[in-house]
Amino acid sequence: MAVEWSNSSPELLIQLDRDSGEPLRSQLQTQLRDAIQTGRLSAGERLPSSRDFARSLGVARGTVQDCYEQLRSEGYLVAQTGSATRVADLRVEPAEATAPGAPIPTPDPHPPRRWIADFASGVPDLGTVPRDDWTWALREATRTAPNAAFDYGDPRGDADLRTVVASYLRRVRGMSAHPHQVVVCAGFAQGIALTFRALADRGMTRVAVEDPGPIGTVTRAAEAAGGTAVPVAVDDSGIDVDALDASSARVVVLTPAHQWPTGVVLAPERRHALIAWAERRDAVIVEDDYDAEFRYDREPVGSLQGLAPDRVVTLGTVSKSLAPALRLGWAVAPVHLVEALTAAKEAADRGAPTLDQVALARLIESGRYDRHLRRMRALYGARRDALAAALREAAPHVPLTGLAAGFHAVAHLPDRADEQAVIAAAAERGVRLYGMSTYRSTRSSHPPQLVFGFGNTSVEEIRDGIAVVADLLR
Amino acid sequence: MAVEWSNSSPELLIQLDRDSGEPLRSQLQTQLRDAIQTGRLSAGERLPSSRDFARSLGVARGTVQDCYEQLRSEGYLVAQTGSATRVADLRVEPAEATAPGAPIPTPDPHPPRRWIADFASGVPDLGTVPRDDWTWALREATRTAPNAAFDYGDPRGDADLRTVVASYLRRVRGMSAHPHQVVVCAGFAQGIALTFRALADRGMTRVAVEDPGPIGTVTRAAEAAGGTAVPVAVDDSGIDVDALDASSARVVVLTPAHQWPTGVVLAPERRHALIAWAERRDAVIVEDDYDAEFRYDREPVGSLQGLAPDRVVTLGTVSKSLAPALRLGWAVAPVHLVEALTAAKEAADRGAPTLDQVALARLIESGRYDRHLRRMRALYGARRDALAAALREAAPHVPLTGLAAGFHAVAHLPDRADEQAVIAAAAERGVRLYGMSTYRSTRSSHPPQLVFGFGNTSVEEIRDGIAVVADLLR
Repeated sequence: MAVEWSNSSPELLIQLDRDSGEPLRSQLQTQLRDAIQTGRLSAGERLPSSRDFARSLGVARGTVQDCYEQLRSEGYLVAQTGSATRVADLRVEPAEATAPGAPIPTPDPHPPRRWIADFASGVPDLGTVPRDDWTWALREATRTAPNAAFDYGDPRGDADLRTVVASYLRRVRGMSAHPHQVVVCAGFAQGIALTFRALADRGMTRVAVEDPGPIGTVTRAAEAAGGTAVPVAVDDSGIDVDALDASSARVVVLTPAHQWPTGVVLAPERRHALIAWAERRDAVIVEDDYDAEFRYDREPVGSLQGLAPDRVVTLGTVSKSLAPALRLGWAVAPVHLVEALTAAKEAADRGAPTLDQVALARLIESGRYDRHLRRMRALYGARRDALAAALREAAPHVPLTGLAAGFHAVAHLPDRADEQAVIAAAAERGVRLYGMSTYRSTRSSHPPQLVFGFGNTSVEEIRDGIAVVADLLR
Repeated sequence: MAVEWSNSSPELLIQLDRDSGEPLRSQLQTQLRDAIQTGRLSAGERLPSSRDFARSLGVARGTVQDCYEQLRSEGYLVAQTGSATRVADLRVEPAEATAPGAPIPTPDPHPPRRWIADFASGVPDLGTVPRDDWTWALREATRTAPNAAFDYGDPRGDADLRTVVASYLRRVRGMSAHPHQVVVCAGFAQGIALTFRALADRGMTRVAVEDPGPIGTVTRAAEAAGGTAVPVAVDDSGIDVDALDASSARVVVLTPAHQWPTGVVLAPERRHALIAWAERRDAVIVEDDYDAEFRYDREPVGSLQGLAPDRVVTLGTVSKSLAPALRLGWAVAPVHLVEALTAAKEAADRGAPTLDQVALARLIESGRYDRHLRRMRALYGARRDALAAALREAAPHVPLTGLAAGFHAVAHLPDRADEQAVIAAAAERGVRLYGMSTYRSTRSSHPPQLVFGFGNTSVEEIRDGIAVVADLLR
C-alpha cells in the first residue's frame, strides 16, 4: 500500500479526534474532501480499499464505505464496479485565493482614521439611533405577526406600513398619498433603480440630474436601466427649468425641499414651471425627499408631490431620520406607475423584509418616530447654530448658505481660494473637509465652496474642527 | 366678501378644532392644502385678505399670514406684491384614484381560501418559525452593535456574517468558501439578478435553465439584465449536459442537490460532465442550493461549488430554513466575480440591512440555527413519511419520487390521466394540487405529474387531503 501512496498516504492526511464529539465518519469525510479540494490528494490517485483504510484508521469498514459513497455522489471520488476508488479528475486550477484561510485578496485600503472633525454629509447622528425603540418595535412585530406574515410578502410592501406611511406623509409632508401608491423599498438607491426600470419600459430613458447634485449615483442608475443622465444647472432658486426643457430629458431627479448639496429651496415659481414642464413634456419628476423633516426656522416645505400627484414619484427613506443601516424607504408613485414599480421590486428582491417593515409601522404609529425626530431636530439645530457661530468667528467674510433645513450647509470661500488646497491642508491638521467640485459635472473648483455636513459631527467637534482650520477659510 | 366667494367660501371649508391640541395654524394649513388638492378650492380663486380671514375664523392675523406664506412656498398659492393671494393654477387632472380615501383601485382578486390541504411547494412551515430565537438575535445585534454599524455598510455585507456563513458552508455544505467570496443578498431572486448583471457585463447573457424548472423566474431575471434564457431538459440523472452544450449558453442555473421541481439528484458523472463543460466553454454554473439542509435518508449531498470554486456561484438563502419574510441570503462567487457582484449589489440597494445580518450571524454562531434545522428535519421527515404512506394507501400504483431531500415530491399519475382535470376536481373538493406542466417550457401536461409540497402542510392535512382525492389519483 505504501507504494500506491508514494506522495500522500491518506492515513497521514487524516487526523481523527475521538474526543471531539463529532462523528468519525463526518471527520473522515470532511478531511478527505478538504484534501481533494486543496490538492493534497490529486486527480486519479487511488484510495485504499475500504477494508484496508478502516483497519489503518481503526474505524468500522462501514464508516469508510459510507464516506466513499458520499464523496462519490458529490463528485470528489469515482468508482467503477470491481475497481478501486480514485480521486476524480476535476481539472480545476489551483485556486490559491479561494482556498479557505487563504490571505485576504483585497484588504481595505483606507483603515478608519481618527479625525478632530469629519464634516461628511449625508449621515445622521449614529450615536443617538433609538436602539431601545427599534428593539421594542421589532419585538412587537415578531411577537404579534400572524404565521402568514413569515411567508413571501406583497412585493409592494406590508399593507400596514403602506397605510401608516401614506398617512404620515399626508400629515407631515402635505402629500396626496394613498396606501395604493406606496411601494416599500430599500432606500433611495433602490428607489431610483426601480423607478428608472419602470420608466425605461415606457421609453423614458433620458434622465436629468441636478448639477451640482448626486450625478454619479443617478448616472449609474440610469445606465443600469439602459438610459443616460444629463446634468442640469441649479441656481439660487433651484433647478433651471428652461435648461431642463432644453435637455430633452423626460425624467428629472431633484431635491426641492433642500437641494443636495447646495441647500437651496426650490422657489415657488420654479415649482410651477417644473410642473408645467412635466405636463407639457409628459414627463415624470422624481423627488428625493431626503431631509425635509429637519427644518429649523419654520416648518418644512411640503412635498412637490402634493401639487402634482400624477407627475411626481416621491422617494423617502429612514436613512436620515433613523439610520442608513436599516435600508428602508418608500416610493409614492402616480397610480399609473405603481404596477410597473411593483413588478420591478418583485424582480429585484421579491419585497422588503417583513418584520423590519412592521417594526417601522409600529414605531410611527406609537408616536416614537415623531418623538425621535423632535429630539433630533433640537440636536441638529444646536449643531447648525454652533457651525454658523464658529464660522462667523473664524471667517466672518465667508457666507454660509443652505442652513434652512437638513444637516449640511455650504461655505462660500473667497474667489481666489483654492478649494482643493484648503481641503488638503485641513486634512494635514486632522480635519476632513469636502469640496463642492465633487458634485459638479465639470468637477470645477470654481467658485470654491465647501459642503459642511454636521449630521454625525458633535458640537464639540464642530468647534474644535473649525478652530483648527480657521486661517485656511479666510 | 360673499360675492368674491360665490362657490366656496373658505370659511365654510375650514373647521378649526380648538380642543384637538393641534396648533390652529397647522389645522388651517392642512385644511387649505387639502381643499386645493381635492379641487374644492380651484385655480385662480382669490383668497380673502389675511385680516378678513383671520377675523372670520377668530384667529390672529399672523396665523393666516404664516399659513399663506407656507402654502405659497410650497406652490399652492400665488401672491404678487400689492394684489390678492390666489390659488395657484396647477393644471393637474382631477386624480380621482389618487385622492386620499379614494376607493382601492385593484382589490386582491384572490381572497385567501381555507383548504382541507394545500400542497404548495417552496414555503417552509410558517408555524414553527423560531420567533423567540430571532427576537433574541435581533436584540443582541441591536444592543451590541457599535455606532458605526448604523451607517451605510459594506455592500458585500456585514463582515461577521460573511465569516460565519463561509464557515457554515464549509462545514455543512462541503464548500470551498472564503469570507471574501461571500456577498450577502436578499434571497434567490436578488441573487440571480445580481449574478446575471455581473455576467452580462462580460457578455455572458445567454442563460440555460432546467426544464422543468423555475423557467419564468430565470427568464425574467435574464431579460432584466439584457439577456435571454433557454430551457434545457432534465432527466432522471439531472440536467442533460449534452443538450446544455448544444444550447450555446455560457451560464446555467441549476439545483444539483435536489432538482426543483422533479426532486432528482444530479448524478456524479453529470457533475463531472457539467464542470468539464464549464471549463471548456469558459462558462459559469449558478447553483441554487435551496433545500439541501433537509435530507432524510442520509446526509446532504455536498455543494457543487466545492468541486469547482472558480466556476460556480452558489446562491443560498434562509427562506427555506427560517422564513421567506426575512429576505436574507448569500452568493458565494469565484474570486474573479466578487467585485462585479458587489458593484451590482451596491447599485441595487447599497447592501442588506445590517441588524438583520448581524442577527443571522448570532443565530448561527450560537448553535440556535443548527438546533432549529434539526427540529425542522424531524418535522419534515414525519410529513414526508405521512405523504408517502397516504399515497401508498390511496394510490398504490402511483410512484412517488424526489423524496430524498427537501419538502416536495413528485407523484407520477397513470399515462392516461388528465393532470389539469385532476387538479380541478381536487379543488372542487377543497384540496389544492399543483401540476408539473406549470414548470415545463412547453406547458405540456404529459407525462401527467403532481408536485406535492409539504413544507407548510401538517401531517393531519396531508392525511385528510390525500384521503379526499384518493380516487382521483388512481
